[in-house]
Amino acid sequence: MKKKVVVSLGHQALGYTTLEQRDAVKITAKALADLVEADYQLTITHSNGPQISMIHKAMTELRRVYIDYTPAPMCVCSAMSQGYVGYDIQNSLRAELLNRGISKTVSTILTQVTVNPYDEAFYEPAKIIGRYMSKDDAEIELKKGNYVIEEPGKGFRRIVATPKPIDIIEIEAIRLLSDAGQVVIACGGGGIPVIEQNHALKGASAVIEKDSIAGKLAADLRADQLIILTSVPCVYKNFGSNNQEALPSLTAADAAAYQKDGQFGEGNMLPKIEAAIAYLDVCPKGSVLITSIEHVKDALKGKAGTMIVS
Amino acid sequence: MKKKVVVSLGHQALGYTTLEQRDAVKITAKALADLVEADYQLTITHSNGPQISMIHKAMTELRRVYIDYTPAPMCVCSAMSQGYVGYDIQNSLRAELLNRGISKTVSTILTQVTVNPYDEAFYEPAKIIGRYMSKDDAEIELKKGNYVIEEPGKGFRRIVATPKPIDIIEIEAIRLLSDAGQVVIACGGGGIPVIEQNHALKGASAVIEKDSIAGKLAADLRADQLIILTSVPCVYKNFGSNNQEALPSLTAADAAAYQKDGQFGEGNMLPKIEAAIAYLDVCPKGSVLITSIEHVKDALKGKAGTMIVS
Repeated sequence: MKKKVVVSLGHQALGYTTLEQRDAVKITAKALADLVEADYQLTITHSNGPQISMIHKAMTELRRVYIDYTPAPMCVCSAMSQGYVGYDIQNSLRAELLNRGISKTVSTILTQVTVNPYDEAFYEPAKIIGRYMSKDDAEIELKKGNYVIEEPGKGFRRIVATPKPIDIIEIEAIRLLSDAGQVVIACGGGGIPVIEQNHALKGASAVIEKDSIAGKLAADLRADQLIILTSVPCVYKNFGSNNQEALPSLTAADAAAYQKDGQFGEGNMLPKIEAAIAYLDVCPKGSVLITSIEHVKDALKGKAGTMIVS
Repeated sequence: MKKKVVVSLGHQALGYTTLEQRDAVKITAKALADLVEADYQLTITHSNGPQISMIHKAMTELRRVYIDYTPAPMCVCSAMSQGYVGYDIQNSLRAELLNRGISKTVSTILTQVTVNPYDEAFYEPAKIIGRYMSKDDAEIELKKGNYVIEEPGKGFRRIVATPKPIDIIEIEAIRLLSDAGQVVIACGGGGIPVIEQNHALKGASAVIEKDSIAGKLAADLRADQLIILTSVPCVYKNFGSNNQEALPSLTAADAAAYQKDGQFGEGNMLPKIEAAIAYLDVCPKGSVLITSIEHVKDALKGKAGTMIVS
């Protein structure tokens, strides 16, 4: 029986520009292929911060030059980014697997995720996105009903809400492919956040944290493990201080206690720990591995990373 | 037993801008939902001409303003367009089905399609894409190895090759979802054209005709019917002339004879007829319906459209 695993990829797995991404995914694909070779059945999710930002800028510049085009809301930019990132990952992972003699269908499912319009995150947007703006541009955003934040001396930036994911709309498609032993890329960039209005789904001006959706996806698929690949080799206590200490293993209770103690950085390790705890709550027999792409191979042998269990 | 059908959607199903598409897909969704209600099991493919052109322009403008960004090749723009169009179709079809009390997973599979680098189409690019360019810009394109064509008095435009599709890389994912009774959107814009180089797939500077891939997809899935939705209600003899004549039914042999007779417009009805003949060659028990979105309902009752059989 293969081990069913959801892998969450962070920014460093993808880079910032089209060329950087083309090169970065080749390295990422090696780590993912290591997991396939270790008999893991993969479902992959990924961040899309720099990608959606690039596309959003491009669609804005388009309208400056060609006035007939209409605006591309964030949900449309998110859909484009899922296509863009999914293509590069599925392409490079397929090639890396074939290089190792493994023939496996790798595909990307365009994914929408519902959020609650009354999620308190909408009242306190926290995620900074996009480029610096002038005060004039910031005022235009405010008039559109968007939030902006001033970074003194640098300019203004848009901030959006990060509501919790409720339902993965295309979960049955993801589950079917995963259960058949195929590799699926889904919920890219946290999924396109949508709000249910009667039977329709309206794109929400929000971003779902990719770790949050990775935990939800792992729980929905009843995965045996959630693997979060990030920029550090493991979870640390007193991170960044003189007495920084690597934590090779943790229970969910330990993790919750450290979290309460303020050990984990917001928008950084904190959402990963929260995702781990939420997933283990649904799948108490599961485990969560947090490590970096460079350390995956060692982590598989128990020589790196942080393993969290119930 | 549901009738397995591949539906090919043309430009008019999608519109040209983000707003036009958002509205157009609602009308398209009604026609597609009519087919689902008639117990058809749908796999959907669509054109992406205006969409890939919009994205390509946006990515070009992006680089004029933000010089750090690297170019987005056509394959990347195509991937983005699949995400963009797939999102709008899956979203609106899901809503339309729910309005009719039907709960069904509708999802988009990002699709690559191999082409033969020695396809003669590469030596005679025929498909005009993108905006009009100045002579200077045309020369830059030529230096990049791209083809351009001059339209006297109007300017220069890029032209790309339209090679035949060889293999749909993600066909096993599409088949699995389709066989499970889910609605799948795949091979958008003809699929991302790729060329096999050892184990890797390189994006090709080409466009696969959406009718061509629709025929291939229908053949690969052993579909019972291929439905091509276009801008005219049926196939005509002497189209556009005084003695224009609607053709309610045709055999593949009739179609081939008319084709030889030059009855069908290139880049217009001709690729549809070619796709029909190619599909019927693999699936002789199948049928091909050519009609418009407005006439689908009547066509289902045999009151509109053109039906082609072996």
